[in-house]
Amino acid sequence: MAAAGSLAGWPGEALAQEPAAPVQAQPAPVKDVTRKLARFIVAAKPGDVPAPVRKEATRTLLNWLGVAVGASRHTTVDRAIAAVAPFAGPAQASVLGRAERFDIQTVTLINAISSHVFDFDDTHLKTIIHASGPVISPSLALAEYLPISGQDFLCALVMGIETAFRVGNAVYPNHYDVGWHITGTAGVIGAAAAAGKLLGLTEQQMVWALGLAASQPVGLRESFGSMNKSFNPGRAGQNGLLAALLAARDFTSSDGMLEAKRGWANTVSTKQDYAQITEGLGQVWETRLNTYKPFACGIVIHPIIDACIQLRNEYKIDPEQVRAINLKVHPLVLELTGKKTPREGLEGKFSVYHAAAVAVIFGKAGERQFSDGAVRDPKVVALRDKVTAVVDPAVKEAQADVTIVLADGRELHKFIPQAVGSVENPMSDAALEAKTRDLVQGILPEAQSRRLIESCWKVEALPRAGELATIASLAPQAAKAHAQKK
Amino acid sequence: MAAAGSLAGWPGEALAQEPAAPVQAQPAPVKDVTRKLARFIVAAKPGDVPAPVRKEATRTLLNWLGVAVGASRHTTVDRAIAAVAPFAGPAQASVLGRAERFDIQTVTLINAISSHVFDFDDTHLKTIIHASGPVISPSLALAEYLPISGQDFLCALVMGIETAFRVGNAVYPNHYDVGWHITGTAGVIGAAAAAGKLLGLTEQQMVWALGLAASQPVGLRESFGSMNKSFNPGRAGQNGLLAALLAARDFTSSDGMLEAKRGWANTVSTKQDYAQITEGLGQVWETRLNTYKPFACGIVIHPIIDACIQLRNEYKIDPEQVRAINLKVHPLVLELTGKKTPREGLEGKFSVYHAAAVAVIFGKAGERQFSDGAVRDPKVVALRDKVTAVVDPAVKEAQADVTIVLADGRELHKFIPQAVGSVENPMSDAALEAKTRDLVQGILPEAQSRRLIESCWKVEALPRAGELATIASLAPQAAKAHAQKK
Repeated sequence: MAAAGSLAGWPGEALAQEPAAPVQAQPAPVKDVTRKLARFIVAAKPGDVPAPVRKEATRTLLNWLGVAVGASRHTTVDRAIAAVAPFAGPAQASVLGRAERFDIQTVTLINAISSHVFDFDDTHLKTIIHASGPVISPSLALAEYLPISGQDFLCALVMGIETAFRVGNAVYPNHYDVGWHITGTAGVIGAAAAAGKLLGLTEQQMVWALGLAASQPVGLRESFGSMNKSFNPGRAGQNGLLAALLAARDFTSSDGMLEAKRGWANTVSTKQDYAQITEGLGQVWETRLNTYKPFACGIVIHPIIDACIQLRNEYKIDPEQVRAINLKVHPLVLELTGKKTPREGLEGKFSVYHAAAVAVIFGKAGERQFSDGAVRDPKVVALRDKVTAVVDPAVKEAQADVTIVLADGRELHKFIPQAVGSVENPMSDAALEAKTRDLVQGILPEAQSRRLIESCWKVEALPRAGELATIASLAPQAAKAHAQKK
Repeated sequence: MAAAGSLAGWPGEALAQEPAAPVQAQPAPVKDVTRKLARFIVAAKPGDVPAPVRKEATRTLLNWLGVAVGASRHTTVDRAIAAVAPFAGPAQASVLGRAERFDIQTVTLINAISSHVFDFDDTHLKTIIHASGPVISPSLALAEYLPISGQDFLCALVMGIETAFRVGNAVYPNHYDVGWHITGTAGVIGAAAAAGKLLGLTEQQMVWALGLAASQPVGLRESFGSMNKSFNPGRAGQNGLLAALLAARDFTSSDGMLEAKRGWANTVSTKQDYAQITEGLGQVWETRLNTYKPFACGIVIHPIIDACIQLRNEYKIDPEQVRAINLKVHPLVLELTGKKTPREGLEGKFSVYHAAAVAVIFGKAGERQFSDGAVRDPKVVALRDKVTAVVDPAVKEAQADVTIVLADGRELHKFIPQAVGSVENPMSDAALEAKTRDLVQGILPEAQSRRLIESCWKVEALPRAGELATIASLAPQAAKAHAQKK
């Protein structure tokens, strides 16, 4: 990944409570990889996690609650619930943004699907992993089912996110390039780490949980643009939860499932860099590198949207006066979002042409700009047809080079070295809050939305973390009253 | 796979109702692979399946019922049930061999786990796929939940098995060689085919079901020798069922998940032979090539056991008079079953040394010969230490070359060109029945065992196929009475 150069170091050294061990350039010997990771996860205490890491995990949680609640009435979620509800178990946990309650496995599936529907969740830019769906969804379901403090909950989230990112680093980019939706294939292992942590697994049980999770990677990139894409983090979260539940009952796996000859990394990738998993555990934190999308679409087109919005605002561009929008882009942009003529909202998210058009017309690229209506809006269609995109090897993945040609012949140019929402140029807490508020608006009652955001920021002070799920969902009566009032 | 040469043709041509189209040697164009397969599955009627194919599927069903019931009290099953029971849904289907009833998703997991615990299930020798766990388990659960005739049930099993074998053929051996447990990675697609057929999916829904299943391959070979191995067909069956349930609610996937650039075959294998999926559908039947194990362990050591038993019986060998047992074997034998010193029964199945020893001592290699007791039996340990195995490139996978050296200096030699249980030398119906009877003995009451075998042979005459599950499990009261009587 071209842009990873700037992120590939270990910027977390400043966060170390102990001086960080120098990180080796060469891979560690292939031994005890799964066990070392398991040992770290099992031993971790909330106080071991540096404050900035806990803060980042809290931001990840806030963003996740927003996207999961925000998409909860989407057809994708409706259909998933219709498919599994007849087989669901006891009401142990809450579907966010709705009034249904099911067993924790079913709720894990639904909430993680919901949180990925808008393509608006968090991103680890080094690997394009969206960890929160697989990791937070089973954790929150467990936190409703068991008495788990906010502190322990957040610690488990960090363990899960850290695990997903580290195993992802070990196999990226080859693993992703061949076709895996890495969110579901690395995320499942993170899910087992978080769920296993909350279940209090022993080291040996955690080894098995990681192994059972490694047996269940989910997701192929061919699914992008269909509901199947959101299913991938959903099932990954559920698979990780099941792995941890089985391990808790001493259901065994092999001891070296991540690193063995016929284990995970060798089977799912032609690259295996095990040092990324085992080096610097507890000293350098990949979790710190999580980012949040200001725009409701794939991260690869954010720099272009950023550029278009900036040009629009700086020059007060009238869309009708635009003759051409010329994009120079990283190769992945056309590979992932090259749809010239999207027919519905979801496809719009995979169209850099549509994204550039709405950015210039509306000055934003939120969920509404990727609705069916927006994709079919004649003004959008007209401007979309004026967008051209060419691959430029000089443009890095987090960059964009945009020129807007106006009817009067003026050429407005903007180069984005690092789009907003990146590690170097992160969304502020206030911007994240605003994004969350927008997402939950109209789904949760106003007072409840406020309470959700407040409770999330102070998650570590909650005696029971499961409270977050109660606040983020509707009691059956409240749901009814809310619907009648609208 | 060395032995595949003799099986690689399309021996099913004799079964064709129409003259078979000549099968192309070169791969078909990569287009509409998923759709062609879906179309075939959706259109198939029970009468379209030739009688010998239906007969083979019935034999597969009988063998599967035996192994699933037989292992139902195993610790692996106990632990799996303990892990998932608290989250299970309504009592819609039966755990075979036991009295528990759960929702169909949970039961699918448990029955498929159970059926693989003894490593005694069916095998497609060309790909080493054990299709019945993933395919039959969700089908039988659905057949308890919905009114499904025996005819329709058997037709769905054929569609599922045929699908698993064909997609397996498309990627084997590269896919297996790299580390995938192909039973769970091809089986999941077969499971979706069978479950989708029973749910009456449209062609488009079946395309999605196959795609959602392709997103969820399960199982790494590193798990062999642990409980995780049986989990793989279990979760694969469940994943295929979920894929079909989602598709039935129009939960979308991509249209080309099997063949697309970032789809299943390209992502999970370096070999893609799509003609194996699309050519000769309805005319040549891979299902005919399913085989059943006479011995309760991995298929690769069957020729050796066969040779040892034959030598033992021919020469009335006294184990104490054995000085050495020298094996010449195919490379996979040592790769898969090279454990010199197994410590428990399960590990014994992955020890060619143990297998040869029990074959000479007991003249059989059933489940009892792979118990913890057998593995620790001093007589077995003593003889095991006299077994040597060397790889011989001249020995094919279905073959074995065994020499037993006696204390008096005699060297007894046996070459097995094709072990019993192979396609060319299949188990007879009577032998299959005897195997099933042995397996269910002590688990089901005697009269019920007889009824199960009878009902299975006449499955196509059953008004409701789900009846098989009732007969193969215990009513809560019956379970109690049976336990008290023992």
